[in-house]
Amino acid sequence: MSYVAYANGPIGGGQTTGNGQGSNSVNLRLFNERVILNALRRLGAASKADLSRTVSLTSNTAGIIVKELEERGLIRSEGKRSGARGQPATLLSLNPEGAYSIGVKVGRRSVDTVLVDFCGHVVERRHHERDFPMPEESLALALGDIADMQGGLPAGGRDRLVGIGVAAPYNMGSWRRELDIRFDAYTVWNDVDIAAQLGAATGLPVFRENDGTAAAVAEMFQGCGRELENFVYLFIGSAIGGGLVMNGQYYRGITGNAGDIGLMPVGPSRLASAPRPTHSCDILLTRASINSLIRHLRANGVEVALRSELEQAIPLHPALVAEWLDDAANALVMPLLSAACLLDVEAIVIDADLPMPVRRDLETRLNRYLDEAVPEARRPPPLRLGQIGRHAAALGAAILPLHLNYSPSREILVNQ
Amino acid sequence: MSYVAYANGPIGGGQTTGNGQGSNSVNLRLFNERVILNALRRLGAASKADLSRTVSLTSNTAGIIVKELEERGLIRSEGKRSGARGQPATLLSLNPEGAYSIGVKVGRRSVDTVLVDFCGHVVERRHHERDFPMPEESLALALGDIADMQGGLPAGGRDRLVGIGVAAPYNMGSWRRELDIRFDAYTVWNDVDIAAQLGAATGLPVFRENDGTAAAVAEMFQGCGRELENFVYLFIGSAIGGGLVMNGQYYRGITGNAGDIGLMPVGPSRLASAPRPTHSCDILLTRASINSLIRHLRANGVEVALRSELEQAIPLHPALVAEWLDDAANALVMPLLSAACLLDVEAIVIDADLPMPVRRDLETRLNRYLDEAVPEARRPPPLRLGQIGRHAAALGAAILPLHLNYSPSREILVNQ
Repeated sequence: MSYVAYANGPIGGGQTTGNGQGSNSVNLRLFNERVILNALRRLGAASKADLSRTVSLTSNTAGIIVKELEERGLIRSEGKRSGARGQPATLLSLNPEGAYSIGVKVGRRSVDTVLVDFCGHVVERRHHERDFPMPEESLALALGDIADMQGGLPAGGRDRLVGIGVAAPYNMGSWRRELDIRFDAYTVWNDVDIAAQLGAATGLPVFRENDGTAAAVAEMFQGCGRELENFVYLFIGSAIGGGLVMNGQYYRGITGNAGDIGLMPVGPSRLASAPRPTHSCDILLTRASINSLIRHLRANGVEVALRSELEQAIPLHPALVAEWLDDAANALVMPLLSAACLLDVEAIVIDADLPMPVRRDLETRLNRYLDEAVPEARRPPPLRLGQIGRHAAALGAAILPLHLNYSPSREILVNQ
Repeated sequence: MSYVAYANGPIGGGQTTGNGQGSNSVNLRLFNERVILNALRRLGAASKADLSRTVSLTSNTAGIIVKELEERGLIRSEGKRSGARGQPATLLSLNPEGAYSIGVKVGRRSVDTVLVDFCGHVVERRHHERDFPMPEESLALALGDIADMQGGLPAGGRDRLVGIGVAAPYNMGSWRRELDIRFDAYTVWNDVDIAAQLGAATGLPVFRENDGTAAAVAEMFQGCGRELENFVYLFIGSAIGGGLVMNGQYYRGITGNAGDIGLMPVGPSRLASAPRPTHSCDILLTRASINSLIRHLRANGVEVALRSELEQAIPLHPALVAEWLDDAANALVMPLLSAACLLDVEAIVIDADLPMPVRRDLETRLNRYLDEAVPEARRPPPLRLGQIGRHAAALGAAILPLHLNYSPSREILVNQ
């Protein structure tokens, strides 16, 4: 038996939100349990007294919850804290072996799988490069990884695998002209529900988000999100994706496609290598994507298919890379200013599957063009480089099942 | 004594959000009380049994809460429902006299004041037209209205006036070039805290939002928001403002400026009447605002200062109005497509302080240009005309104090 669960913790999502419903003491208990787990996730280790203070619960309430979570193997004692006066306090922390989760990122040029423990630490990671693989091939790669990872879990760990998170671009078979995907058969991706297929084949609960939102989830839990509660996130991969984090939660939108920065309208590219737009506007993914870099290299006689080849080509062709960077930075100006006006966030976080010097060069150019863009506007929020890098979407996918099973979403407070 | 309270019910706002805090039974009781009030606000009238079913509370819990709310005068019995079998049930509804609230909208061309009862119905409304009034004049007009409205309340009603909501453009003294505000002294508006002054002068709690967000709040409670939980809202007034409604809540952003559609980047106007942009982009308020219509009329020999004069001029100069409409619709395309990609909403709601035929014409042109804009994009969400019209910001301002005192925000469930 398997099912595909849509994310139900974050803001939005088209599912029942319980707006208008009352609450009761059962919800309250579940919520407080997750509040304690969440606090330990942030604090790393804490005494029972610290915990109850941090989460504003009475020590009695906190104590009862801690005892039960210990019995369920989700938290553990870490020994005593030394140095304090009086009786040394027992330190509690999450038990890394309390639960496991697998994330799968299915992309246009790669399949990535990652196994994380209850603390969100990566236990194992697999990466497969392919040039526009078809669904059967991607599915087979992911299933192979999942079987290996399950097999490698410690005794009893298989039962504590809470699910599979799946990150994939929305409508992966579309925008073939803008992304130079030359074969018609690739449109089949638009009809494939890879998450459902993974669920059916493994019997595990499956949780899915588009790749941009999944990457934003990784950044929220393990990157800039440790300091920022409100940011627009974008990731330049084969195409370009994004996600929105508001008030410490990620925002899905009504169809799970919020933050779809790749389809934002832009003017035409200044590069001769780019396809001419067929409409009054072009879309951002035509210009600010690794695909557009590969296209620009190819148009200038540098053939590159796999990501590893691109990594080798970049330092050899600095002038071509700079031309692309300049066009990509220009393309990003209006979308990012628009996002800043609409969302009033603390920062814009940019990550990319590109070497760090290229990311920094993009950041520098973009800051310059943002400054030049509009009259007397409030300054756009600062740019920050993402802290996760190329594996962000796979890691975010792996975090989803843990988040949705163990985070103190306000939703669970309300009767459903 | 007075204080200025920022909205603390909606998503975001820079205030403590209680993320990470536990909950307790006191919060639970307050939340359920407001859930009942909220259900009555939506249902109009309901029996105790209907109510408890609607909000998923036990009839015992609901009964205790209803009794107390009746004693506090917030709800009342409406007589019996006839036609049902068995004992006819007593119908409950909100008591309109249970509370009152005043909204003030301070704008570049008007001051509007509105008094609403606990049901959100307008009891009284005042409208003053001025051409770019200075702060002292606007303050005096608002205070005069407030004193009159307080004086007109029924016996005991003054004590149940829960506060004043204030809606004003953010940085009203800025963008003078784009809005043709020719005198330097107008910048003083950027340093004036009109909400704090109203609070100090009246001794009432003050709640403020920018004018776009306040208008979105009105639309959310009394317009399209009765059918839609997720929409981008924009209002074409003297300039242009906006607001975001997500999951049935309005979103403020970290400084209360989310939905600031007027500053979104656009290309230059096609009208000779418009000022040439000084930077690589212009901003939307230069092109899609009543000010730009007045400017276009003036450049063609039609002098208009007050709104009432504009209303008379519009039917007399259809060609000029059409030229402006076409440019405004063109200007709106990229901001609206951008918002749709980022926010994945059910609809885009457009309202304007313009006669209905002009609004409809704008909608028609905009739909055409949106269709022509981008390749193979998912269709943007449908356009809807706003249902509130010119007084939206003042009405939304009046709703704020009621909303923040009586709505079941999830925030109040969590220990602060």
